[in-house]
Amino acid sequence: MMKKIVLQTDFGLNDGAVSAMYGVAFGVEPSLGVYDLTHEIPQFNIWEASYRLYQTVQYWPENTVFVSVVDPGVGTQRLSVVAKTSNNHYIVTPDNGTLTHLHESVGIVSIRQIDEIVNRLPNSGESYTFHGRDVYVYTAARLAAGIISFEEVGPIFDVNQVVTLPHQKAKEKKDLIVGSVDILDSRFGNLWTNIPRELLFSHGISYGDQLEIIISNDDNYVYQNIIQIGQSFANSQVGEPILFINSLDKLGVAINQGSFAHIHQIKSSGNWQITVKKTTN
Amino acid sequence: MMKKIVLQTDFGLNDGAVSAMYGVAFGVEPSLGVYDLTHEIPQFNIWEASYRLYQTVQYWPENTVFVSVVDPGVGTQRLSVVAKTSNNHYIVTPDNGTLTHLHESVGIVSIRQIDEIVNRLPNSGESYTFHGRDVYVYTAARLAAGIISFEEVGPIFDVNQVVTLPHQKAKEKKDLIVGSVDILDSRFGNLWTNIPRELLFSHGISYGDQLEIIISNDDNYVYQNIIQIGQSFANSQVGEPILFINSLDKLGVAINQGSFAHIHQIKSSGNWQITVKKTTN
Amino acid sequence: MMKKIVLQTDFGLNDGAVSAMYGVAFGVEPSLGVYDLTHEIPQFNIWEASYRLYQTVQYWPENTVFVSVVDPGVGTQRLSVVAKTSNNHYIVTPDNGTLTHLHESVGIVSIRQIDEIVNRLPNSGESYTFHGRDVYVYTAARLAAGIISFEEVGPIFDVNQVVTLPHQKAKEKKDLIVGSVDILDSRFGNLWTNIPRELLFSHGISYGDQLEIIISNDDNYVYQNIIQIGQSFANSQVGEPILFINSLDKLGVAINQGSFAHIHQIKSSGNWQITVKKTTN
Repeated sequence: MMKKIVLQTDFGLNDGAVSAMYGVAFGVEPSLGVYDLTHEIPQFNIWEASYRLYQTVQYWPENTVFVSVVDPGVGTQRLSVVAKTSNNHYIVTPDNGTLTHLHESVGIVSIRQIDEIVNRLPNSGESYTFHGRDVYVYTAARLAAGIISFEEVGPIFDVNQVVTLPHQKAKEKKDLIVGSVDILDSRFGNLWTNIPRELLFSHGISYGDQLEIIISNDDNYVYQNIIQIGQSFANSQVGEPILFINSLDKLGVAINQGSFAHIHQIKSSGNWQITVKKTTN
Repeated sequence: MMKKIVLQTDFGLNDGAVSAMYGVAFGVEPSLGVYDLTHEIPQFNIWEASYRLYQTVQYWPENTVFVSVVDPGVGTQRLSVVAKTSNNHYIVTPDNGTLTHLHESVGIVSIRQIDEIVNRLPNSGESYTFHGRDVYVYTAARLAAGIISFEEVGPIFDVNQVVTLPHQKAKEKKDLIVGSVDILDSRFGNLWTNIPRELLFSHGISYGDQLEIIISNDDNYVYQNIIQIGQSFANSQVGEPILFINSLDKLGVAINQGSFAHIHQIKSSGNWQITVKKTTN
Repeated sequence: MMKKIVLQTDFGLNDGAVSAMYGVAFGVEPSLGVYDLTHEIPQFNIWEASYRLYQTVQYWPENTVFVSVVDPGVGTQRLSVVAKTSNNHYIVTPDNGTLTHLHESVGIVSIRQIDEIVNRLPNSGESYTFHGRDVYVYTAARLAAGIISFEEVGPIFDVNQVVTLPHQKAKEKKDLIVGSVDILDSRFGNLWTNIPRELLFSHGISYGDQLEIIISNDDNYVYQNIIQIGQSFANSQVGEPILFINSLDKLGVAINQGSFAHIHQIKSSGNWQITVKKTTN
């Protein structure tokens, strides 16, 4: 069974760019399976590209080859690499921070720098603005099809030199747990924090507890409330706030059938801090 | 030939949720065919999810397994089921009204309740908010791959107990035909009614006739006009209203290359009524 | 290896229309590969449909069958055709201008008019509004699967009679190069002109040169500036304008990580003219 390729970009699907990438992959090997992660990463948002890989890669079979092209530095000297995770997934990407979450969670075990002399679509011309088509998907397809090995991607690259974006882990501070709003579940408006379930539950918290939540942006308080942590949204009424464990086993903040992010004007990033405190019952 | 899976959700394609579902399916069986119906169902809009299945399922080969996850009650006691239609399509869905149109049109012949003890992604953790990934697509993939039979989905469930959303069929009233605006062809702004071509034509109406149309929202008149029913949009000028038979063999209302719904501020639901009367020639 | 089908429409992905087309293709032959170009062509915008084919088709393997349904004239006497390019790609489309760019660039070598008596989905009913499903994808699937040959599509049609949209090629005028803004790279806001790299470079222009750019809409000046042509965006600062060679080897105009089109309110069409002049160094 041929390996599969999964594409992520910030190109959107309004024009022919993604389809041209599919075509290049099939030109390498017509029987490849080519699929999408998402093409709606906000332009140049490397943090979100990194997060979406973290959200998704683990659910795909081993040896799947991911291509992520969120690349504000296309045409500069930023490196193009193929990273191999500890779970045997491959990521073809510019080395610009896109590997941040995977590096920290499952771990990157080996990286090869793409040798663009040999790994570049033949006759791809004088354009230096579409490496996603001319280098990345071409290399991914050759790797997935077994035409080149991981070693033949190019020279080895020190895993410890991989570019990562600055961020902090969730941690305990006295009787508080402090984390950040890592990302929004944008269509539903839920906040996804970086606070793992284990950290909460080892702190003596369990489903049904009332927790005091404070959300701040830099040093400005934005939201404060006491909310129940429920096993599902059904533990709240429609329109009420609810804390929950999201599909990545992290703390989430929602309004049942409403948009928490929109109503309270909350966005995501390391600057959006959340603190959690168990209230005395 | 392996059966195919077709996914419908209200998740959108901006994040990794749908791609994670694909990955789970391929983890069950790498050679499955996995495709999309749509992921742009408006959030929690079960009626539209039901309608889009009705619009689409019939055009897919027998034994295709559909997954529909529009699930405001995720984590509640609502049941998870697999329904089998009279045309041998399978639908994996929460039993929350999503089967309304298929039940009434082609007919549901058998339903199994999903036994989540055996039909749940191994190690899918403590999250109860993503049954689409952890239960529905996993069950669909195992069914499509022949790993479990329809009977092994779980206990049988009385077809007559299936949840359906309230709605009325189109009917004759004296010299009028009365129906509702079931849904919008949203990108083009055409109204799709629930009035079948046969009902119109058995009423003595034929292409080229002038019909008096009244559209009301509850009891408020919104639009009244005499419009020709054409065999195609070409029977009207650009910018003119036209009645037509849509791709599901129902009466449609359009403006040639314009948006009827937008211009006349018309939405869809059982509360949007349309009456049709043949005018004397 | 079965040939592949690639679909392009202006239907969007919000409803079941595209998925129904997939289903029809699999009903013809379950092992076909079916993929998307884009379904976000602005409604009825034949020019953009033509351009997106030009942007994409060349990157797919020979014998791929494309279906393009941007069809304001559905149901009129406009012809339905299958065109074969000089590179052995097939395009199933209404003959309404959609073949403009391919005809002029790679060249259309043969056209067959679809005989809708034999090439129409059985039992596709009385609707005349969804030829994409009932005729186009059905014909494409039968052609890709080898059930019909190109000749069996229907009677031959004179290539010189193909409908093309009016437009002008880029050309030299004294010491100027004059072209048009063919299309926008809409998500990023870059202008894509019809001025080929060869025309610029044969004019003595090379990377690093400062070029005087004038953009006008009909006879109204909209923008005038002296901008460097860089080998990549990296030759400019973030927020600065930059000229570049795009992924189709044509001149592009951008703002590094900004939207040139939005900031300067520029759209695309033959009426949006651009002139380029090399400044004295």
